Amino acid sequence: MAQAGPGYDPRAYEPLTFHDAAQRFQTGGDTPRDFLERCLATIAERDPVVQAFAHLNPDLSRAAADASTARWAAGEPLSPIDGMPVGIKDLLETKDMPTEYGCQAFRGNFPKRDNPAVWALRQAGAVVLGKTVTAELGGWHPGPTTNPFDPRRTPGGSSSGSAAAVAARMLPAALGSQVAGSIIRPAGFCGNVALKPTQGGINRGERQATSMSTHGVHAGCVEDMWQVAIEIARRAGGDRGWPGLNGPSTTPAPRKPERLIVLETQGWYDLDDSSKQGFSSVLGQLRELGVQLLGRRDNPLVESLERAISDARAVCNAITGWENRWATRNLVDQHPGGVSERAKAVLAHAEAMSVDDYRAALLARRASQDAHGALAGSADAIITLSCPGPAHPWLGDEPGAPLVPLPTGDPVFNFPSSMLFAPAVGMPLMSISGMPVGVQVFGQPHQDAEMTAIARWLLGAVAPVIVDN
Amino acid sequence: MAQAGPGYDPRAYEPLTFHDAAQRFQTGGDTPRDFLERCLATIAERDPVVQAFAHLNPDLSRAAADASTARWAAGEPLSPIDGMPVGIKDLLETKDMPTEYGCQAFRGNFPKRDNPAVWALRQAGAVVLGKTVTAELGGWHPGPTTNPFDPRRTPGGSSSGSAAAVAARMLPAALGSQVAGSIIRPAGFCGNVALKPTQGGINRGERQATSMSTHGVHAGCVEDMWQVAIEIARRAGGDRGWPGLNGPSTTPAPRKPERLIVLETQGWYDLDDSSKQGFSSVLGQLRELGVQLLGRRDNPLVESLERAISDARAVCNAITGWENRWATRNLVDQHPGGVSERAKAVLAHAEAMSVDDYRAALLARRASQDAHGALAGSADAIITLSCPGPAHPWLGDEPGAPLVPLPTGDPVFNFPSSMLFAPAVGMPLMSISGMPVGVQVFGQPHQDAEMTAIARWLLGAVAPVIVDN
Repeated sequence: MAQAGPGYDPRAYEPLTFHDAAQRFQTGGDTPRDFLERCLATIAERDPVVQAFAHLNPDLSRAAADASTARWAAGEPLSPIDGMPVGIKDLLETKDMPTEYGCQAFRGNFPKRDNPAVWALRQAGAVVLGKTVTAELGGWHPGPTTNPFDPRRTPGGSSSGSAAAVAARMLPAALGSQVAGSIIRPAGFCGNVALKPTQGGINRGERQATSMSTHGVHAGCVEDMWQVAIEIARRAGGDRGWPGLNGPSTTPAPRKPERLIVLETQGWYDLDDSSKQGFSSVLGQLRELGVQLLGRRDNPLVESLERAISDARAVCNAITGWENRWATRNLVDQHPGGVSERAKAVLAHAEAMSVDDYRAALLARRASQDAHGALAGSADAIITLSCPGPAHPWLGDEPGAPLVPLPTGDPVFNFPSSMLFAPAVGMPLMSISGMPVGVQVFGQPHQDAEMTAIARWLLGAVAPVIVDN
Repeated sequence: MAQAGPGYDPRAYEPLTFHDAAQRFQTGGDTPRDFLERCLATIAERDPVVQAFAHLNPDLSRAAADASTARWAAGEPLSPIDGMPVGIKDLLETKDMPTEYGCQAFRGNFPKRDNPAVWALRQAGAVVLGKTVTAELGGWHPGPTTNPFDPRRTPGGSSSGSAAAVAARMLPAALGSQVAGSIIRPAGFCGNVALKPTQGGINRGERQATSMSTHGVHAGCVEDMWQVAIEIARRAGGDRGWPGLNGPSTTPAPRKPERLIVLETQGWYDLDDSSKQGFSSVLGQLRELGVQLLGRRDNPLVESLERAISDARAVCNAITGWENRWATRNLVDQHPGGVSERAKAVLAHAEAMSVDDYRAALLARRASQDAHGALAGSADAIITLSCPGPAHPWLGDEPGAPLVPLPTGDPVFNFPSSMLFAPAVGMPLMSISGMPVGVQVFGQPHQDAEMTAIARWLLGAVAPVIVDN
């Protein structure tokens, strides 16, 4: 069953993209219905092994694609993403499919409501093809999804299915959500581009999860990534109390950064040598291209930021654990057998916290944001890895053995942008030992468009680095 | 059916209080079970007309009160509010009672979950006696509750049942929630004290409603009000991302303010002459007591604040309408006949808004907060009315006639503290034409304890004003 996948060669891999197909919709050279059928064919071929989908809705999607086909034929698409098949992480409610949160206790949950982001996608004409697998409750306990480039490895999480569906060319784009590293890490493991917007950037609706949760986009290319995000934000705005993602109505042009801050994070010291070598090679190319790089040894403010995020794991886990505490407690009380042991362990940790423990974690988060804010204007963006090297092998816990820690990977490179409320864009710039490893840029809050422009330039200017040690 | 109530004479009215009874629990002169039985007897007597309760849970409450009685007898109460019967506004989930949001579409909704604030109350030993009537979805469409001092009049809303249950001495305290004016206004109409904490002060749980929603407390006296609030906050903290209510573990001592800012708000110009006369008399007493009063004509920063809140109604309604838009749309789609015409009219208004309309309203709110912040240190608190005069007559809409606007009263005096995220304490300082009219003080964010201390002083130092024109 678990056989080797095709591996990842960035020189050969071509992602599935929509914006170019949409140009052919106008001329009649392609149609949304045909695009959808190609996705469905790929799903039929790949998903038995990849297992990216929790639910599929081919019938309603075909009807939606036909309606889109008619709009394009009439020259009246609702938006540039009219007809785009999209996947929705199964934490977001959809009125025509169940929402099960990757959690046994929610098996069969079918609230028949659309999350505001899903509503906005439909308003823009997108075809909501399926719900993608999430790690349980957006947390640590994995679903069945495998990495499209090697089914013996994790796709990352918690947006496992969204990342894998895009990487396997089953969809051009899919929504994910991130609290610690649930968008950018799986994108890094799967070779996607991805946007984790500024905190509050995309309307999460009534269920606000935690104070660091954001909805974001996985896609095969920056153009589709930005277009999906901006079409949602133009219609449904951001979270309550936040202005929401703003920026140009089409993808910002590539922009070469003059200066980038290189952030090590807590993750650097445990990173494998091949990934270090690969990232150094990316940085070397940037230097050759005339981009100045600024590290912790070059600038005391960078050092201050490194220190302010040096305890990011503990701070983020304290905040998230406390904020999820009552919802999880209610769930465990109602469905003692319907919640994983991993989630129960997190709950036990949260229930040992006091209010002042939580307040202390909020203070540490605020201090890290101040340290980040102090760097505004010092550089165009921060650059670091998206994930701690290539996706690791994962074939499940062994019965009777202790639970494997972090089966969907370590968010160590992702805690910082989450706690800084920073917009982050992940890019597939490396192949390490035949697997994708992503690089991310992130900026000051509300620099989503700038990060997108810089990522677009990086993807064009930097040759993918291949390390096969 | 609708007969005149007893009227309101502040010289004769004695609120139901718990903190003094609790002292007798220690000596055996009273017990939580006896206290509960007295509440149940009052409910049996008054609630057929007042109709404050959506659900009552006498059996589980008796068991909880007996357990509390045993703890007090053993000298081991869980907190100073151990054994206190409390009511919970029916917007908050309770695991042993339905949660129907005052909305036909949620009839029978029974999620079997405890809101964090409810969980905290149980941890502190409080007896969760019942769910109190809320205006539909915390909005404008009233429930059946009548004003305890005159059943032909509204109790205010949306925390109608919590305010009325306390005023009718059926409970010593009850939780409410406020977006526009849903705690302080009904408290003003019903003669309660009430705390609308700093935004984020009390953990609202997963359902975050809007960016101006807060949970708060109605009570018969300041001591019970503060104790309930702080016992919740010590256990469940504030909203996600907020430090939450903080302050002394018992009610702060009375504190005489040196200087108060008198705010007119949008409400002043339409206020009836008797209420104006009554409020002037309160201010006159304060002057005689040596408190300096600062109005818009005395200080350009007060004038700036008055201007910054002069459009408060439109700003608050835009923000709240937009933030509730998707939840209401989903509800109306699922239950077209289960949502009031009032709620549908609000939805139609929200659905005509653009993202930029919402952003503009957020900007106006922020500007008002800046204007308020500029006054920090200029005075100890702001003082204004809690409600636009005495509760008005309300016997229901007339069939076929246009819907009566604002049947639970106008939040015109409450929009400011809500949009300023300010802690507000309401006090029963006036009787106008035989009905209570409240006065409130509010302060800078996180001055909850200071406002409580000032309110306590005001209640002791100011003789209730009676105007019977």
